[in-house]
Amino acid sequence: MEKIVRQSMLYDFYGELLTDHQKNIYEEVVVNDLSYSEIARLNGTSRQGVYDIVKRCDKILEEYEEKLNLVQKFLAAKEKMQEIAALTEAVKSENRDKALDRYIDEILEKSEEIFQEF
Amino acid sequence: MEKIVRQSMLYDFYGELLTDHQKNIYEEVVVNDLSYSEIARLNGTSRQGVYDIVKRCDKILEEYEEKLNLVQKFLAAKEKMQEIAALTEAVKSENRDKALDRYIDEILEKSEEIFQEF
Repeated sequence: MEKIVRQSMLYDFYGELLTDHQKNIYEEVVVNDLSYSEIARLNGTSRQGVYDIVKRCDKILEEYEEKLNLVQKFLAAKEKMQEIAALTEAVKSENRDKALDRYIDEILEKSEEIFQEF
Repeated sequence: MEKIVRQSMLYDFYGELLTDHQKNIYEEVVVNDLSYSEIARLNGTSRQGVYDIVKRCDKILEEYEEKLNLVQKFLAAKEKMQEIAALTEAVKSENRDKALDRYIDEILEKSEEIFQEF
C-alpha cells in the first residue's frame, strides 16, 4: 500500500486520538497533500518541526493499529464485501426472472452504502 | 442495549488499550461474568477495588468510542449486512434457475464470514 494511502486510513480510524495541533499538521500532509516547507511557512515553524510532528503522528497511529488491528479487519471485510457485490453482479447478469431484479438491485445498492460511514 | 453487551463490544474494540491489570479484572466481569466479590477474592483485593477498576475501564472505553465511533459504525454496517443477507435469502427462495444457486449460496456464506474477525 502506498504510504500516503496507509497514513490516510490510519488517520480516518484513529486521527481523533491525536492532539488538535498534531491533527492540523498531519491533515495538511495526508489530506491536503501540502509539502513540509509549505506547512512550515503556513504555521510559522521549521520544516524540521513539521517533519518531526508527522513522524511522531505516524508512530502514534501505527501503535494504535498494532494494538487494535481495526484498519486490517476493516480492509478484510471490505474485500469480502467486494466479492459479495461481484457475485451479485453475476446473478444479475445471468438472471432471467424480472421479479428478482428488485431484490438484486437493492443488494447492490446496500453493498455500495455499507462502508460509506467509515 | 444491555450494559454487559455494550461493555463487551467496547472491550472487543478497544480492550487492548487498557493495562494488563485492567484487562484481567474487566474480563472477569464482562467475559467470564464473575461477581465483584469473587474477583476480589481471586485477586486478593477488595470488592470496592474491583468496582473502581471496572468503573474506570467503562469510562476509558466509552471515551475511546466517543472519539472514534467505531462500535457505532460497525453496528450500522452489521445491520446493513443483515439486510443484504435477508434480501439474498428472498432471492434464493424465489429463484427457479438452478444455475444461479451456486452464486447465491456463496453470497450467503460470505455474508456469514464478513464480520467474523471483529
